[in-house]
Amino acid sequence: MRVGRLLRSVNELGYTPRMRFSLIALPTALIIILLNAPAAWPQEAPGEGVATALGRIRDAGLKDDWAYQRLADLCDKIGARLSGSPQADAAVEQIAAALRAAGLNVSLQPVKVPHWVRGEEQAEIIEYPGRPAGVTQHLHLTTLGGSVATPVQGISGQVLVVHSFDELRAREGEARGKIVVFDVPYNETLAVNGRAGTAYGQGVVYRAQGASAAARVGATAALVRTVGGANYRLPHTGEMNYDPKLPKIPTAALSAEDAMWVARLAAEGPVTLRLKLLPQTLPDVESHNVIADWPGRERPEEVVIVSGHLDSWDLAQGAIDDGAGVTSAMGAVRLLQTLGLHARRTIRFVGWMSEENGSAGGQAYFNLNSAALERQIAAIESDNGAGRPLGISAHVPPAALAQFTPLMAALSPMGATLLDRREEPGGSDVEFLDAAGVPTLAPIVDTRTYFDYHHSAADTLDKIEPDNIRRQVALMAMMAYFVAEMPEALPRLPPSKPRVR
Amino acid sequence: MRVGRLLRSVNELGYTPRMRFSLIALPTALIIILLNAPAAWPQEAPGEGVATALGRIRDAGLKDDWAYQRLADLCDKIGARLSGSPQADAAVEQIAAALRAAGLNVSLQPVKVPHWVRGEEQAEIIEYPGRPAGVTQHLHLTTLGGSVATPVQGISGQVLVVHSFDELRAREGEARGKIVVFDVPYNETLAVNGRAGTAYGQGVVYRAQGASAAARVGATAALVRTVGGANYRLPHTGEMNYDPKLPKIPTAALSAEDAMWVARLAAEGPVTLRLKLLPQTLPDVESHNVIADWPGRERPEEVVIVSGHLDSWDLAQGAIDDGAGVTSAMGAVRLLQTLGLHARRTIRFVGWMSEENGSAGGQAYFNLNSAALERQIAAIESDNGAGRPLGISAHVPPAALAQFTPLMAALSPMGATLLDRREEPGGSDVEFLDAAGVPTLAPIVDTRTYFDYHHSAADTLDKIEPDNIRRQVALMAMMAYFVAEMPEALPRLPPSKPRVR
Repeated sequence: MRVGRLLRSVNELGYTPRMRFSLIALPTALIIILLNAPAAWPQEAPGEGVATALGRIRDAGLKDDWAYQRLADLCDKIGARLSGSPQADAAVEQIAAALRAAGLNVSLQPVKVPHWVRGEEQAEIIEYPGRPAGVTQHLHLTTLGGSVATPVQGISGQVLVVHSFDELRAREGEARGKIVVFDVPYNETLAVNGRAGTAYGQGVVYRAQGASAAARVGATAALVRTVGGANYRLPHTGEMNYDPKLPKIPTAALSAEDAMWVARLAAEGPVTLRLKLLPQTLPDVESHNVIADWPGRERPEEVVIVSGHLDSWDLAQGAIDDGAGVTSAMGAVRLLQTLGLHARRTIRFVGWMSEENGSAGGQAYFNLNSAALERQIAAIESDNGAGRPLGISAHVPPAALAQFTPLMAALSPMGATLLDRREEPGGSDVEFLDAAGVPTLAPIVDTRTYFDYHHSAADTLDKIEPDNIRRQVALMAMMAYFVAEMPEALPRLPPSKPRVR
Repeated sequence: MRVGRLLRSVNELGYTPRMRFSLIALPTALIIILLNAPAAWPQEAPGEGVATALGRIRDAGLKDDWAYQRLADLCDKIGARLSGSPQADAAVEQIAAALRAAGLNVSLQPVKVPHWVRGEEQAEIIEYPGRPAGVTQHLHLTTLGGSVATPVQGISGQVLVVHSFDELRAREGEARGKIVVFDVPYNETLAVNGRAGTAYGQGVVYRAQGASAAARVGATAALVRTVGGANYRLPHTGEMNYDPKLPKIPTAALSAEDAMWVARLAAEGPVTLRLKLLPQTLPDVESHNVIADWPGRERPEEVVIVSGHLDSWDLAQGAIDDGAGVTSAMGAVRLLQTLGLHARRTIRFVGWMSEENGSAGGQAYFNLNSAALERQIAAIESDNGAGRPLGISAHVPPAALAQFTPLMAALSPMGATLLDRREEPGGSDVEFLDAAGVPTLAPIVDTRTYFDYHHSAADTLDKIEPDNIRRQVALMAMMAYFVAEMPEALPRLPPSKPRVR
């Protein structure tokens, strides 16, 4: 999951006023379903009712480890796969091959993607109050994606530690020629109380905009306290964005411990750092979205997307971000195929390329399909990790939520009982479709520990409980089948202005 | 805390059959105290009773932040301080200066210490089943203290993954020329249930002896799954020991994630690693124990030691291991000085040098004092971190435990109610005295998360709750005063054979 979406609107489990089917509301829904048995649209479902089909999908999905095996292959055999890298190409090939081996019809959609490459990265505290002669202190940091480099020999400068953009503005007279350190702690209390996205959002503005904010006041570099929980000297990388009107200065995330250390020393007197960051931005690279269609039986030209992103950050295996999402999505299509269940419309797996680095894959798909957007019925994306699935969020007209009753009833036995309407796209890759009014949806999963690992070296396969992948496969297959099977397409919202990145 | 002591005997909070004063037993003890007021030895305590003195020490200690400030200085200004390093020398100077500034009489005791220096360390998986062309995988690891180096260009070899010494023996025919990986998980369940030392002990035998076990069967290197909880791609270093009869092969700790990754791949087919470890063992260096005496009023030649170790591993600030212990110990002596409380005997702060790297400081002190060991009345060491203090462990004759009743009564209001007799020295540095029969004691602290940080880059000041340092200062000052004040010296155990390292 990338910064963009969270910066715009953060709505989370348990803290929104929106309509939802909770554990309390569901019995009512179940009773309605039972009174209307066998299914919501019995006259239109050939062979079996929707409720029966959803139950079959759920029960089969909860026993299916194909997606987890694909996830293990992606993590262990490919590993990190940042857009533009050979590993990203290898991921395209591996995923396409797995879908073909399952008997699905695969196509690769060309996407031009950025190619940013991490280089040497080093920082030391070389001067501070009370420093014994000859002693310097090594800092743990990681360059932020898209950062420019320092000169090859590095830079050094005094630090200015601030705790907010407001403090930086108040102290802008002190900033010229300095290295600005944004020491903004991640709010663990919010995170463990179901508001991880809010906690992330509070910090990630500094990751995204800190460099330009520091450049505006004449700083030479910006270091940001890492955005994530669980302090184990672990910096988290991620995308940053330069304001094109300002000088580009190098920027990196300090581990929480290092940010606190620098801040404590700076509270006592002048602190000087030496900083060397040598990333490179290479020419854009030709890459691909991976697409596999499971054809609709009545309106095959109409498409419901079920998706996740293929690329990951470069520090780890990208297991939770977004190996879990992309393999659950492919598992959902493969599950329907295994069951021989063709919905009314086509269900299309998309493995997006370059979500982390600008969503070129989502943009390319939109551009290719913009002439006939009426055929894009809905788009589901999973990009919030592999926590236990708890329900569904949907960006649809408010009145459309009532139509989900049969789906929520079928999800109830697996404990996925939440239905949230959210004023945001289901994922970064589907935001272009979303802005055009296409309904977008996403699984709601438990994200309490998501940002402990996200974008860090610790995002590895061992963090994932296989049963959660089974659950997510079942959930996504049920969502996709349900939406693709509706007699009338989900109603749309009016197109909104495309969001500024 | 080093490996040696744990390998020999691990006894922990809550799982020993030994005598203790629990929350249930204490009211009885309190009643006895109250019936015998004003104090245990009223006829011998000049001015005030022992109980009154202990209460004053406790109440003042619980309000005293001097030790925490020393800890912050040690962590933030010196940082890592492995024996032989300039930072270790700086720590000696800083601690000595702080004690002198407090008005204590400080001496430096020469100690010759090892000087091992970490160098470049790199590992990659270069061949594995399903590897896309051109893709290799970077591993997170850290060289173990004392390891020899690989050749400068590194080595490469197939891995043999085993999960125990037994499995290595069973598969020794496969080991020749290979890199052995010991994939032994840290038992978190034990750790969070108060048996962290047992969990550590189960893993640390592989860290200590894995290299020689692998060398015995012809391996070229040994990698050990890191010994510690909380998986955040964080390898923990620590001392290892070569069997002098076997070839010395290089050895390092893999992060838990990397060990699992290699093990998963190796379960599918041959896996080849490239490994470069370039540590150096330099000539021994002259260093020092720091000693400060708070003189006894009646028998100043008799000494009760209160101590911690000055050195730390090289990856972090050494906050929990053992900045917390050494600064609490100095805080204890300084607290008695502030209160003007001279016990019957001298209370001696010792900041030991090189606990992590062979306990040369403890050995040197023993050698210097071995001609008059009867003057070494008891030795307290704190080297189990900065968890909340829960009580006292003592290696004394069983019958001696009853003498601690007045101390336990005075500790009760701060919730430190455990009294354990343990068949192990109070710490690695005092084990030489212990083997000669000198009673050794230690605080019992909550160690549930100790091994999540221990010997890793995450052992930093932010992990420490300042109130726990206040509590440890109070506890150690009370222990030291109480033992130094007893009319008769604590009884001794018969000398045991010095332990083999």
